[in-house]
Amino acid sequence: MTITIRKLDSTQADFQRDLHHLLAFEASTDEAIEHAVTTILHDVKARGDAAVLEYTNRFDRVNATSMQALDLPQSELKAALQAIPEAQRQALETAAQRIRVFHERQKQELNGFTYTEPDGTVLGQRVTPLDRVGIYVPGGKAAYPSSVLMNAIPAQVAGVQDIVMVVPTPDGVKNQMVLAAAAIAGVTRVLTIGGAQAVAALAYGTETIPPVDKIVGPGNAYVAAAKRRVFGVVGIDMIAGPSEILVLCDGTTDPDWVAMDLFSQAEHDELAQAILLCPDAEYIAKVEESIHKLLPDMPRKDVITKSLTDRGALIKVRDMQEACAIASDIAAEHLEISSENPQHWADQIRHAGALFLGRFSSESLGDYCCGPNHVLPTSRTARFSSPLGVYDFQKRSSILHVSEAGAQTLGKVAAELAYGEGLQAHARSAELRLK
Amino acid sequence: MTITIRKLDSTQADFQRDLHHLLAFEASTDEAIEHAVTTILHDVKARGDAAVLEYTNRFDRVNATSMQALDLPQSELKAALQAIPEAQRQALETAAQRIRVFHERQKQELNGFTYTEPDGTVLGQRVTPLDRVGIYVPGGKAAYPSSVLMNAIPAQVAGVQDIVMVVPTPDGVKNQMVLAAAAIAGVTRVLTIGGAQAVAALAYGTETIPPVDKIVGPGNAYVAAAKRRVFGVVGIDMIAGPSEILVLCDGTTDPDWVAMDLFSQAEHDELAQAILLCPDAEYIAKVEESIHKLLPDMPRKDVITKSLTDRGALIKVRDMQEACAIASDIAAEHLEISSENPQHWADQIRHAGALFLGRFSSESLGDYCCGPNHVLPTSRTARFSSPLGVYDFQKRSSILHVSEAGAQTLGKVAAELAYGEGLQAHARSAELRLK
Repeated sequence: MTITIRKLDSTQADFQRDLHHLLAFEASTDEAIEHAVTTILHDVKARGDAAVLEYTNRFDRVNATSMQALDLPQSELKAALQAIPEAQRQALETAAQRIRVFHERQKQELNGFTYTEPDGTVLGQRVTPLDRVGIYVPGGKAAYPSSVLMNAIPAQVAGVQDIVMVVPTPDGVKNQMVLAAAAIAGVTRVLTIGGAQAVAALAYGTETIPPVDKIVGPGNAYVAAAKRRVFGVVGIDMIAGPSEILVLCDGTTDPDWVAMDLFSQAEHDELAQAILLCPDAEYIAKVEESIHKLLPDMPRKDVITKSLTDRGALIKVRDMQEACAIASDIAAEHLEISSENPQHWADQIRHAGALFLGRFSSESLGDYCCGPNHVLPTSRTARFSSPLGVYDFQKRSSILHVSEAGAQTLGKVAAELAYGEGLQAHARSAELRLK
Repeated sequence: MTITIRKLDSTQADFQRDLHHLLAFEASTDEAIEHAVTTILHDVKARGDAAVLEYTNRFDRVNATSMQALDLPQSELKAALQAIPEAQRQALETAAQRIRVFHERQKQELNGFTYTEPDGTVLGQRVTPLDRVGIYVPGGKAAYPSSVLMNAIPAQVAGVQDIVMVVPTPDGVKNQMVLAAAAIAGVTRVLTIGGAQAVAALAYGTETIPPVDKIVGPGNAYVAAAKRRVFGVVGIDMIAGPSEILVLCDGTTDPDWVAMDLFSQAEHDELAQAILLCPDAEYIAKVEESIHKLLPDMPRKDVITKSLTDRGALIKVRDMQEACAIASDIAAEHLEISSENPQHWADQIRHAGALFLGRFSSESLGDYCCGPNHVLPTSRTARFSSPLGVYDFQKRSSILHVSEAGAQTLGKVAAELAYGEGLQAHARSAELRLK
């Protein structure tokens, strides 16, 4: 097993161009997928349960005769929680507890406000939970119980009453750890449906499935296309790109640790991206040695090799200061600052989905159980978006209670501006309130 | 001028179906527009300034020879502020000041947090502003200075350094009130470009225009299509549907006021929606009389008539309680509760973009100068989204600083779950940190 990883040096003339090329990723849109999804969405919207049932039987190779057969009772979730090994159950519960604590802090931050002006006018902002959300959980091989916790717990903490999870069960195989996680995370209903048909059922509703207000969670290309299409009818979380890790290291961390951290991202899929930024050429060489040494023992070494070869890089920078500037530009999903005094460098980072500070903060700890969410902005979108959080399951409403006295002063200002914009009914509506 | 407004009664058998029909609105996608926008986006991405210049000269019928000619100096904004009538300038400044105060409150609410666990692990969330945003302001007839204030001030309060406004100037005509508003709102650069070419320039950047992180603001069908397309490369605010007002009245408000409030929404455009919910049939008749009486004097009576006829309704409900349930279902952009003790009814409303409480709180006051934002979720999206705010110009990053002791307990939990998901490098990365 040999592997060649791209090496870049920030002092080279073409560095900016090479870096840009390395980061470039454009999600391709597949016309066949778009077409299939459009058909499925229309069909489920028009025919409801019957269409969902047909597609599920066909795509997941099952033989359900009614929607009821695809609707898991809570007792089955509880049974799964009892059925999994004790160590797994405890790990899930510990992770859930820590995720809940972190997200409770998020909730405390956003309470809304009101203030009263001297003339009695009250202005404010109200924060309330969404009524009902849908959580998409992939089935089959890449079934991630941690994803159930990370998507459902913030919704539950936000106060969402109905948390509907959909998870396909190809060939009828149910993942017990996923169902156990649903039991722990407070999911209120589980439907064993998936694909675009599940997204359509959640967005439009059917005879047996009430429509939700927002759909979150990862999925394949069909699910992503369907989510894009129903956006507006319901809210959606972001459409995630391939996962990324950027390790910023001053050369003081065990190179094996850094190599394994790069692997932990690269093993996700062949498009995942793992990059090291370091000012120390000798240290970079050591990390490379560790990569060669550790790779052969990795069960997912084929994926890791492809990912690191195609999209990975070891980048020599002038100094840590420059590393921070480059990292801000990259705006990575996961940024590890594996160095002495990591807070000093963190203060210079303008954009990142999550910052892992210090050499003990491996991304894997955050992926599962530290508490913060593992659903993070990818593909440089950390420049303008945030980790999934309680706030994604709440919405704000403005409150305006204008007093009679307030209407006198505000009415004149509003009328002046409304006439200036040629909106005379706006102006008259304000003026009617003047004494 | 005669007008016939649809009347519904919640006790009728077909009420739910009729209400659903009334609210149904599907934005049509025009293939010709989609195609034109795709071409323009590709062209600006490939050719930069040259393409922007060509499209601007063609579509806006101007003769600019360089991008510099489309780049307004700050002195021109300041001159506009001096040139407009004193009353307009004062109204803009009063509105801006009040909008700033409200949005400062929003900012105070979101400061981020950190907490330290007994083993020294620090977890938290950081809130930072976006670097650079673009604000689209329509030019020509429907030029709204209030929109400049409502979009730019939250960005400025959030701490965004570069606020780039684009506003087309068809036939070279500049709206002085719009430029004055830009001066007041702290816009850092104004480019007189518009359409899909302006959206492309902001999203991809050109030789003279650096790419922004997010684009907000209203626009025509070309602008909306372009924003949808660049979403992901940059953030966008929502794609707004037609504006809506829902008045919930107990029959104690002057019917002229309610009629004019319905007009103030209906005059926006022919697709706008104005609906009254009231338990008192006699009062509804009075509002109808007021509509007939007041309509002939409205300069925009043609638009109002078309809007009220096609999409308006006067709905008789059983009682205020039922009105609140229906209003929650409608999830209106603007909800006026024009009644005695409006807070009592507001507490029963689950979804609305903005709640206007009491009969002095006309929507027009909120549109211009109360302080809360006038960019609000339309088309029932208030079920899951919020008014434009400071939070739209900030993003959160998670902070994870795991101590050596923390890595010991968290590492075992993470490894257990990672092995359960078949992600061995994740598990090894956690285990390497175990002593």
